[in-house]
Amino acid sequence: MVSDSGLSLHGVIPPLVTPLDERGDVDRRSLERLVAHQLDAGVDGVFVGGSSGEIALLDSAAQRAVVETTVGTVSGAVPVLAGAIDTGTARVIEDARQAAELGVDAVVVTPPFYVKPHPAEIVAHFRHVHEAVDVPVVAYDIPSAVGTRLLPDALVELAESKFVVAFKDSSGDLATFREILGRTSLPSLNGSELLADTAVQLGAAGLVPGLGNVDPHGYVRLYRAAKDGDAEAANTEQERLARLFAITSVADLGRIGFTAGALGGFKAAMALRGILDCPATNRPLAPLSTDETDRIGEILAAEGLGAI
Amino acid sequence: MVSDSGLSLHGVIPPLVTPLDERGDVDRRSLERLVAHQLDAGVDGVFVGGSSGEIALLDSAAQRAVVETTVGTVSGAVPVLAGAIDTGTARVIEDARQAAELGVDAVVVTPPFYVKPHPAEIVAHFRHVHEAVDVPVVAYDIPSAVGTRLLPDALVELAESKFVVAFKDSSGDLATFREILGRTSLPSLNGSELLADTAVQLGAAGLVPGLGNVDPHGYVRLYRAAKDGDAEAANTEQERLARLFAITSVADLGRIGFTAGALGGFKAAMALRGILDCPATNRPLAPLSTDETDRIGEILAAEGLGAI
Amino acid sequence: MVSDSGLSLHGVIPPLVTPLDERGDVDRRSLERLVAHQLDAGVDGVFVGGSSGEIALLDSAAQRAVVETTVGTVSGAVPVLAGAIDTGTARVIEDARQAAELGVDAVVVTPPFYVKPHPAEIVAHFRHVHEAVDVPVVAYDIPSAVGTRLLPDALVELAESKFVVAFKDSSGDLATFREILGRTSLPSLNGSELLADTAVQLGAAGLVPGLGNVDPHGYVRLYRAAKDGDAEAANTEQERLARLFAITSVADLGRIGFTAGALGGFKAAMALRGILDCPATNRPLAPLSTDETDRIGEILAAEGLGAI
Amino acid sequence: MVSDSGLSLHGVIPPLVTPLDERGDVDRRSLERLVAHQLDAGVDGVFVGGSSGEIALLDSAAQRAVVETTVGTVSGAVPVLAGAIDTGTARVIEDARQAAELGVDAVVVTPPFYVKPHPAEIVAHFRHVHEAVDVPVVAYDIPSAVGTRLLPDALVELAESKFVVAFKDSSGDLATFREILGRTSLPSLNGSELLADTAVQLGAAGLVPGLGNVDPHGYVRLYRAAKDGDAEAANTEQERLARLFAITSVADLGRIGFTAGALGGFKAAMALRGILDCPATNRPLAPLSTDETDRIGEILAAEGLGAI
Repeated sequence: MVSDSGLSLHGVIPPLVTPLDERGDVDRRSLERLVAHQLDAGVDGVFVGGSSGEIALLDSAAQRAVVETTVGTVSGAVPVLAGAIDTGTARVIEDARQAAELGVDAVVVTPPFYVKPHPAEIVAHFRHVHEAVDVPVVAYDIPSAVGTRLLPDALVELAESKFVVAFKDSSGDLATFREILGRTSLPSLNGSELLADTAVQLGAAGLVPGLGNVDPHGYVRLYRAAKDGDAEAANTEQERLARLFAITSVADLGRIGFTAGALGGFKAAMALRGILDCPATNRPLAPLSTDETDRIGEILAAEGLGAI
Repeated sequence: MVSDSGLSLHGVIPPLVTPLDERGDVDRRSLERLVAHQLDAGVDGVFVGGSSGEIALLDSAAQRAVVETTVGTVSGAVPVLAGAIDTGTARVIEDARQAAELGVDAVVVTPPFYVKPHPAEIVAHFRHVHEAVDVPVVAYDIPSAVGTRLLPDALVELAESKFVVAFKDSSGDLATFREILGRTSLPSLNGSELLADTAVQLGAAGLVPGLGNVDPHGYVRLYRAAKDGDAEAANTEQERLARLFAITSVADLGRIGFTAGALGGFKAAMALRGILDCPATNRPLAPLSTDETDRIGEILAAEGLGAI
Repeated sequence: MVSDSGLSLHGVIPPLVTPLDERGDVDRRSLERLVAHQLDAGVDGVFVGGSSGEIALLDSAAQRAVVETTVGTVSGAVPVLAGAIDTGTARVIEDARQAAELGVDAVVVTPPFYVKPHPAEIVAHFRHVHEAVDVPVVAYDIPSAVGTRLLPDALVELAESKFVVAFKDSSGDLATFREILGRTSLPSLNGSELLADTAVQLGAAGLVPGLGNVDPHGYVRLYRAAKDGDAEAANTEQERLARLFAITSVADLGRIGFTAGALGGFKAAMALRGILDCPATNRPLAPLSTDETDRIGEILAAEGLGAI
Repeated sequence: MVSDSGLSLHGVIPPLVTPLDERGDVDRRSLERLVAHQLDAGVDGVFVGGSSGEIALLDSAAQRAVVETTVGTVSGAVPVLAGAIDTGTARVIEDARQAAELGVDAVVVTPPFYVKPHPAEIVAHFRHVHEAVDVPVVAYDIPSAVGTRLLPDALVELAESKFVVAFKDSSGDLATFREILGRTSLPSLNGSELLADTAVQLGAAGLVPGLGNVDPHGYVRLYRAAKDGDAEAANTEQERLARLFAITSVADLGRIGFTAGALGGFKAAMALRGILDCPATNRPLAPLSTDETDRIGEILAAEGLGAI
């Protein structure tokens, strides 16, 4: 699907983690390796600075380093999306302009948070961002992080007014995703790791699975099978990826937080596979334990994922 | 109460709104007038860049303008606190360093948001901020905005380790506030407009009422009466301020959001009193209607608040 | 799928509304007509005393009247399920025994509510109910009403211990439903009106759509198409039913509650179709307005649903 | 304060636990002992079948046994309130009539739950209950259990229309409690264990502390000191009771639920004091461990509470 902006958003577009070195700085070499691994797998785009990229925990220098390195490594092969994830309109515009200057193809934007906006104010937010930046805007619904839904009526208005060129859904609410597919012609991307085949069968333009950091080849196979109408092959791949997704829940939540457990699971698996040099997450997230990392190694082995 | 940092936080410390002109830029002249009106009322400090200051909706230039103007106008008369309100540790440090360079006396910091932290990670967050910045840190519990509680056990740990020098509570949960008063010797500030006398009677070091933007003299009278043990005078003042607080709920929430209604109510009242030149709130918040503003005028008149 | 109890739960099993007369008493004649209309459509079971049946608003006499009339009218043609929906174990057992005496084939039970149970206590709840009643138990996950999830680990334990014979999911969380399908061999019923075809394709044993009260023939066609592998026909039917589902959101939620609007929408449509004599809902739910009812008539007409 | 019904609700009115024997049946002898201990302490009423009474977990026979025994033991010495806590209007009326027949002085009623009511429907709910039963109704706000607030506007309407004779607040939101005190002349009872002195100072007619099961003498002393204007004595007693309240949080919430931990804490302490023969809670709540019970014993000893 090609939007009016000429940007084609479809297929597998993983939300990349932000590799860090042991001091907590962006590890550009590991990021280059990660991007290369993604391109090798045949992804159709990459999305940096999203929730999986720990965007909330990066300062502006780190955000810049991530976007620069990614744009440079991708070098036009596929679209690069960058999160401009911030609490309010003015901050989002600031982030989005930086990303645009660095050459991204689109920015991904949520409703305002920390404040409590009305749906009409959410629409105004996207209008202001659209008018202020030179790259297309993708609307992002992630109520678990933002605390507010991006509801279908607002999204239809955003689509009709062309304030946004695409939609990314991480709500977990597939009925509403389907409603949006039916009511707009926006390319709609689904963030679920576990309903990826279903989302494609329902008409999703693409997939944005965090687990695609660990196994991009799996999601590319799944997407192609689903698009080709081979529901059985897509389902088999989905079931394998669902087993692999267990890496996000090995952590003891009595000791570390949900975000640290899930994203730490991705990064530990990627370090075990040799995609990252170091599995560190940003401050203040706690690291996985050795036992938890060993358990992730077992899961990788069971699903046949070795060193790259 | 004087903390180890030499900073004395007590009394009435209103969380100042951010005055804007009609183009949406920070209105430095109105901010100077607001600060002067606060000092004239006898406040014991001012807090800029908090929730009432629409911090989530300001970009970094606006944040800088607010802090600069306030520090300059206050000119050492009372402590200036500034919010370093952001999603994660690195961003908070960036904000706090800017505020420190501009000369604030302390920064006010919440737990991380957008992510889901464990209490131990919240403690680590404050430790990192404490170690990275040269001004004292005030811990801020505002679950309605942040989505996470700053629980007593974590706060006791923050107090004992001296990562924070004070506590500001906007949880609405007075039982927990009282628990914290009993378990730490942190100067604790309460953000309730409606339980201000009670908070002082329970041992709060100070008050941070948003409504203090509109009527700082009222809160100064209330605080002094409560400290002097004149519960009846404090209660009478509190009841008057509770009636005045109705300005935050005149807006039609079918049309504008909760934040726009409450903060728009403060700003409309301040414009009617001549404290601000313009009642505008930041994008994307919707403005109050003329009828709603008229209603606010009636409430001001009923409580005897005219032009300054 | 036939459980150990010999009970086969599969196909379309609508959660019947409770018809009332103008005085608010159970309207047995309309209930008989409703059941007959369901059987005529070819449903595979009926479920009374669920959320769509306003179970929370019925007293024990009304509950008895509903079950008696339904069991009598169905007369063994298909299984009759009855909700034993109550806050705690002892109350549920009381309700379930009454239903069992009246001849239902299974009872449908949620986790405890009003209290805050641990997952292990939820498992114990189902064990106690299982041991105390002579009919099979269906576990019901409806967090929007109960406030607690029935999580996969608990459900796997319930399945393996045979405390329940089936699962009904009204969580709206299709990823978890799919996980449960993969981890247990329980017949699993999905309550979504809008993802019914998808649920069947993922392996749901059956469907429990509230909208099946209004158009059982539509859901029977959808289910059969989905089971036969005709995804296109199933999808076409699903899209028609999604348009029809708009009857649940015509009400002005500034005036009446969400439950009154949704269930009032079902009943108004059923009265317009001649299935019910009267569209009344139970006290204290407010009725739809004439305009709202007219709007429902238009939606029915647009989807070709006339008088039965 | 005497309502129009002639009923005077004021002072300390503990929400009694429901004593059980080892088989899980209501232990009438322990209940008689508990009531006698309460009367000995000088309480001004007792409230059975509330949240502390595990009402959600009692069947109708147990509810009857509790009310009968209590009414008989109290024998008119003080008012007896009984919860008619149920999901909807018709069920509440059924419960309330049973309680009225057994001689209670008032019934305590929440908004409907399981369903999602509009505030106008909540008012209608109380109107219907008021019209259907012969005893006065007390409105009960407990959003942690019910999921819906009983908001001030609705409560003012209930007060003015005389559908309810008093208000019991277990919201934890003292600002709203104070608003209600200011806007109605309803006798208002506060359920907080930790803000009891404050509530009286703000104008609460009485207190309904669950911890009053364990130490009614403490709350009677606190109430009298607060009423007599001896804030220091009231505060000292409150601080002692706050330390005692730690018995509700000794349980490991990784193993048992919040309700089991809190109510199990009350019952364990009461058994240790000899008020109850057995600390059992209702199915499906899990029991405290021996270690947890020992910890409760230590807390009792530290606060000087021995065998009665």
